Amino acid sequence: MSEKKTNKLKILNDPIYGFITIPNILIYNLIEHPYFQRLRRIAQMGLSYLVYPGAHHTRYHHAIGSVHLMQKAVRILKFKGVEISEEEATAVYIAILLHDIGHGPFSHALEGQFMKEISHENISLLFMEALNSEFEGQLSLAIEIFKGDYHRKFLHQLISSQLDMDRLDYLKRDSFYTGVSEGTINSERLITMLYVKNDNLVVEEKGIYSVESFIVSRRIMYWQVYLHKTALVAEKLLEKILKRAQELSLLGINLPATKTLSVFLKQPVNEDNLTLETLKEFSKLDDYDILAAIKDWISVDDKILSKLSKSLINRILPKVMIQNEPFTENQLLTIKQQVKEKLNYSDAELDYFVYHGEICNQAYDSTKNNIQIIYKDGSLKDVTEASDHLNILALSNPVYKYYICYPKK
Amino acid sequence: MSEKKTNKLKILNDPIYGFITIPNILIYNLIEHPYFQRLRRIAQMGLSYLVYPGAHHTRYHHAIGSVHLMQKAVRILKFKGVEISEEEATAVYIAILLHDIGHGPFSHALEGQFMKEISHENISLLFMEALNSEFEGQLSLAIEIFKGDYHRKFLHQLISSQLDMDRLDYLKRDSFYTGVSEGTINSERLITMLYVKNDNLVVEEKGIYSVESFIVSRRIMYWQVYLHKTALVAEKLLEKILKRAQELSLLGINLPATKTLSVFLKQPVNEDNLTLETLKEFSKLDDYDILAAIKDWISVDDKILSKLSKSLINRILPKVMIQNEPFTENQLLTIKQQVKEKLNYSDAELDYFVYHGEICNQAYDSTKNNIQIIYKDGSLKDVTEASDHLNILALSNPVYKYYICYPKK
Amino acid sequence: MSEKKTNKLKILNDPIYGFITIPNILIYNLIEHPYFQRLRRIAQMGLSYLVYPGAHHTRYHHAIGSVHLMQKAVRILKFKGVEISEEEATAVYIAILLHDIGHGPFSHALEGQFMKEISHENISLLFMEALNSEFEGQLSLAIEIFKGDYHRKFLHQLISSQLDMDRLDYLKRDSFYTGVSEGTINSERLITMLYVKNDNLVVEEKGIYSVESFIVSRRIMYWQVYLHKTALVAEKLLEKILKRAQELSLLGINLPATKTLSVFLKQPVNEDNLTLETLKEFSKLDDYDILAAIKDWISVDDKILSKLSKSLINRILPKVMIQNEPFTENQLLTIKQQVKEKLNYSDAELDYFVYHGEICNQAYDSTKNNIQIIYKDGSLKDVTEASDHLNILALSNPVYKYYICYPKK
Amino acid sequence: MSEKKTNKLKILNDPIYGFITIPNILIYNLIEHPYFQRLRRIAQMGLSYLVYPGAHHTRYHHAIGSVHLMQKAVRILKFKGVEISEEEATAVYIAILLHDIGHGPFSHALEGQFMKEISHENISLLFMEALNSEFEGQLSLAIEIFKGDYHRKFLHQLISSQLDMDRLDYLKRDSFYTGVSEGTINSERLITMLYVKNDNLVVEEKGIYSVESFIVSRRIMYWQVYLHKTALVAEKLLEKILKRAQELSLLGINLPATKTLSVFLKQPVNEDNLTLETLKEFSKLDDYDILAAIKDWISVDDKILSKLSKSLINRILPKVMIQNEPFTENQLLTIKQQVKEKLNYSDAELDYFVYHGEICNQAYDSTKNNIQIIYKDGSLKDVTEASDHLNILALSNPVYKYYICYPKK
Repeated sequence: MSEKKTNKLKILNDPIYGFITIPNILIYNLIEHPYFQRLRRIAQMGLSYLVYPGAHHTRYHHAIGSVHLMQKAVRILKFKGVEISEEEATAVYIAILLHDIGHGPFSHALEGQFMKEISHENISLLFMEALNSEFEGQLSLAIEIFKGDYHRKFLHQLISSQLDMDRLDYLKRDSFYTGVSEGTINSERLITMLYVKNDNLVVEEKGIYSVESFIVSRRIMYWQVYLHKTALVAEKLLEKILKRAQELSLLGINLPATKTLSVFLKQPVNEDNLTLETLKEFSKLDDYDILAAIKDWISVDDKILSKLSKSLINRILPKVMIQNEPFTENQLLTIKQQVKEKLNYSDAELDYFVYHGEICNQAYDSTKNNIQIIYKDGSLKDVTEASDHLNILALSNPVYKYYICYPKK
Repeated sequence: MSEKKTNKLKILNDPIYGFITIPNILIYNLIEHPYFQRLRRIAQMGLSYLVYPGAHHTRYHHAIGSVHLMQKAVRILKFKGVEISEEEATAVYIAILLHDIGHGPFSHALEGQFMKEISHENISLLFMEALNSEFEGQLSLAIEIFKGDYHRKFLHQLISSQLDMDRLDYLKRDSFYTGVSEGTINSERLITMLYVKNDNLVVEEKGIYSVESFIVSRRIMYWQVYLHKTALVAEKLLEKILKRAQELSLLGINLPATKTLSVFLKQPVNEDNLTLETLKEFSKLDDYDILAAIKDWISVDDKILSKLSKSLINRILPKVMIQNEPFTENQLLTIKQQVKEKLNYSDAELDYFVYHGEICNQAYDSTKNNIQIIYKDGSLKDVTEASDHLNILALSNPVYKYYICYPKK
Repeated sequence: MSEKKTNKLKILNDPIYGFITIPNILIYNLIEHPYFQRLRRIAQMGLSYLVYPGAHHTRYHHAIGSVHLMQKAVRILKFKGVEISEEEATAVYIAILLHDIGHGPFSHALEGQFMKEISHENISLLFMEALNSEFEGQLSLAIEIFKGDYHRKFLHQLISSQLDMDRLDYLKRDSFYTGVSEGTINSERLITMLYVKNDNLVVEEKGIYSVESFIVSRRIMYWQVYLHKTALVAEKLLEKILKRAQELSLLGINLPATKTLSVFLKQPVNEDNLTLETLKEFSKLDDYDILAAIKDWISVDDKILSKLSKSLINRILPKVMIQNEPFTENQLLTIKQQVKEKLNYSDAELDYFVYHGEICNQAYDSTKNNIQIIYKDGSLKDVTEASDHLNILALSNPVYKYYICYPKK
Repeated sequence: MSEKKTNKLKILNDPIYGFITIPNILIYNLIEHPYFQRLRRIAQMGLSYLVYPGAHHTRYHHAIGSVHLMQKAVRILKFKGVEISEEEATAVYIAILLHDIGHGPFSHALEGQFMKEISHENISLLFMEALNSEFEGQLSLAIEIFKGDYHRKFLHQLISSQLDMDRLDYLKRDSFYTGVSEGTINSERLITMLYVKNDNLVVEEKGIYSVESFIVSRRIMYWQVYLHKTALVAEKLLEKILKRAQELSLLGINLPATKTLSVFLKQPVNEDNLTLETLKEFSKLDDYDILAAIKDWISVDDKILSKLSKSLINRILPKVMIQNEPFTENQLLTIKQQVKEKLNYSDAELDYFVYHGEICNQAYDSTKNNIQIIYKDGSLKDVTEASDHLNILALSNPVYKYYICYPKK
């Protein structure tokens, strides 16, 4: 067995899929790159482990899992006669591998906090471009597909659509690690049902129940996990902490922090001052900078920062109330007043300890990139239009809820 | 360790739950009784293994699995403060253990074929009464609960309602053995959410998504498994074979068959001529009598019976067409005409080879024994009325489809 | 999507592997053949379901599962640079699909009972040859490999050796369906570690612990499942029943039985009178003939047959004693004497109700087709010689135990 | 449902066991304590996630899982007639919950680095005593049992022995999260087989194969996971980094670090200067302090610390060679000489970049707290003495291997 061969046959254990094979050397080298290794230190589900103690899996694991599913998808589509060149295959592997590389600490929880108004997808793109320089253009096609510029649309849809490999991995993975088995989806079966028609990714007729099950599971995962009230309040608290730390830093107060975190506390980045240097600095920022700092902040002079930090580290979280109607001005005032009186807070402090907002759950959005079913005669229908699927239609209505957080007693 | 103790601690391996403990000696003795042992020879899912090769599990296994879940339910309810006496607990274990003991060969497939117009539940009741005599009245309370006569309604609901232990086991078990993972339900979580209010079984608020997931899974299991068109056509074929065999037998023709099957071929039982003797005879009838006979019938003189039998045994099944609208008289005529001409069948034969019907899937029926959600303040709501659950409402509409079966070629 | 393509992409649900793909039309057609469909009616584990209620899986499912693993093995070996032609691949798929097609009712339990002194492997070969005629020579290479005549030895080893796809499937499958999780093996990992050196199947160095785990699991499955004393006594009882029935039949007594079973009761087949006709008759014999007959035999005149049959059907099994030393003549005599006196049996009867024998468990046999480990430098070692694996050596000693069965009370 | 009741019925999702119930308020309050919450930030398997990307589970999760198994064990033993009072039960829950509370960052990897020559068990004991003061003596019995001072020995054995709930959870959990399925043990079955004889925890005869399987799995987990060469080299590297950082700190060099880590860098703690204050400081130290600091240390002036830190963070790990014999002086010299010349290192530097040691795997130690099998007649045997278990004897020999680590290229 030639050394070459075995090196290529890099296999990783995965509790979900059993084994994941790294398809080729280029993918292997991208995984080894420090930009990607950083994802080992970013929790896939932010602070959800405060509710689901098993949920410590990382962006790294999710990204590699998505590559695994993408290999399945490419194999199935080619089996069914869809032509996909070797080069295109590698490009979609790269694109899905790197689709989340722009995520900052705690994934969505702090999105926009360090890189103002820049989505993680855009940062991913910047990383891809930086890597493309290092890897001498080998990522060009992947980038084209990622941006949706490549002429074969379905390849982009495999990376980003309502049935992309990203979702098929993260729903399965998050359900697995949280132990919320109602959220499990049958990724393998869904992939087996994929086909391409008019350059669009579609689902074979007999897969319609799997699609329905997928949408329902997604909805359940949102209510039960992603929007779980304790996870929600923890993330909001984390946000408040970082906001306070940035404010103090901008006032010139030196807070204990790692070098990298200090940079971002003192000078928030936005599209205007974003340079390659900033990106490199960002590539060093992860969950560890944040939590290590917050632990130190428990003993800073600023009462607000100290209190908030202690609350998070020791998991003594604010109370959260959720209702189906927006809170009225009156309700908000009453709660604030009560807290103010009881805890003797100033108005400025109040903003850090009482906050409200809206959450939304739309399991399926029929207005963009809808899921199409292909019938045996070749005709297509949106999944919501299939006669017997009133409930999918019902699931495509966004549901809003409203929360308010305030200190316990 | 006293011999007594270990004997009582009878433990069975179960691929789904790990281990099943037999709660006491009486349950153990009922399981050992030949009436119950017969269930080892009755496939839980009839002929579905022709589609799902893993689906060979039996009524025996399902019944014991239901006892396992019932023990969980009793433990949880008692933990929450619902009083259940030792005697009541044993009674619900017995009732759930025996709830399906009246099933005939291939479970639902041949229901009503041997015992005309007597449901399997009624036959179960007859068996329970026979056993009650043998066991000197120890089943009296179980029977009372089974019939719904006991004053504590929720005990009956644990055995028969939209969230009973029967459903919680069979959906999980059938999904497991077929490998249709979209149909998996989280029985354990659902049970954990049960409570009793106003003597009714209700579900705690935080269990609402589990209920929704349960209903969707049930619907998927119906379309994808229980009403799968190949399983459907196989069951219809089985029905036709037995119908033909009975007709021939009533004409005085001696068909090869076991002693027990012969009895039922020659004299169908109905409510009028049903005696304890018949019940005892019925207790000897299982899948083995049927398939062994059908294999022999391949070589009988009667062309119809022979052809039908061969078709089933060698799995060369009729074609089946399914549509959302009833077949028109015209459509039916056309198909019959074509078959008649092509295969040169007489009109009498046609009835055995071309047949049609309707199938219905109603995942949740809000009109009877509806599932109620209990809120923190103690108020109750039907699960369909919870604001965000339009889709459960959608799922409670029965969906009808129409099929026609006819020979291939 | 062309009709052709989708037809080829025949996919089966499997609770263990998720999905099994049928590799090509020829395999598909072999599966559809009545000879193979018969395996749906033969329990993989005989009567073990009397101990493990989940163990109702069939030879059919096992054979198809083995094809699934074989596809994995071929993919892995080709990936590592071992050349396997399309024709050779199809041949090993066929060979593993049909390797057990010669099994009679209840698998091993009745082996040799109907076909005297002909192993199931030899009957499998006869079926393959019959099928080769029907399929116009398309099975020739498969047969050559199955018989070990093909020049590339490792292909035969994939079908029959200590790490063949047969074992890798049945150990996993039997452990899964019995729920004996200690017996689980990691088939996928073992296959990933396979390689070919000097035309022999070998295992990469880093797979050594998987091999060890595999051997230990196999040993556990033997003691805990295959040689479980209740399963053992049930199989012995089954054997006695058939032996008695054959004896009575040879005496001219007409026992109720299906046509096919009657043939074999009245005229046992051996190598001399084995014709294609007999093989065809044998292809109709399965578990259903046997159990249906035994149920009828409960009410025959012959006391012995009647008693034995009732004992099996109602699961009132003989007592079994197991010890590490052979029973002495004296012990045997004492037991027989006691039974004789208590139950008033004749000497002739005694043979049917008191019987003893030996069981053997050899988890690994280093003398034939041993498992070789390949090191990074290309050198080979028997797995027992690897320095740290004294316990594998220990596991390669056959262990004998001795049993005696006699009526309860 | 009274508010009280539901609060007590605190249920946690667990991907392995489904649900974990918190047995009572006291346990709940201990879990909520900051000392225990810290375990959320300590990886159960140190840096093993660099090899097994799924292995990010924490000490927190393991401790709670152990409580789950302990509840099973108590239930089973009581069912079999072993008397265990409510007070004793709570005590063993507390003891197992807190058995690992003394672990420092990255679990075993840095043991002894911050608390010189104090085992994590001893630190656990100190924490328990501190908590006992806070909880007004409610932990006294738990501490007595933990220390082995309580007169009922088997209660201590449930917490610390070769079949304790610690091992039964961590082997299962680590195998689950790494995906090394050969390492899976059947904790549930093992617990079901436990019994108490002469105040010792013993295993029923029919559990002998489960014990054997458990020992083999343990051995496999050691070679394949805990002593995996890449995990090993990563841990050694981590050790070297901290050692260097402490040396520099003792020289008065100020390294970036959190407040807590600084304390421990500047003044190592040993038994003499260990105070309650130190313990409190230690209770703030976790994985986040360490990794955040190491990331900063990449850019410190000290070349050695910088290089080592970069190597760990970017996962460019040293090479490791493992052999069955100790390395000779000659071998060591040669390797050091080569590295020195190639990389131009000083002798002082060499110690940080080339290092060797010994690893040992003893799956079962028959000399202490051996596992005893109880036979039906009440007699006891050590598990290695059971006739058929030569391989367990083989497994009880410790196996030593020797490694050396040195820079790549």
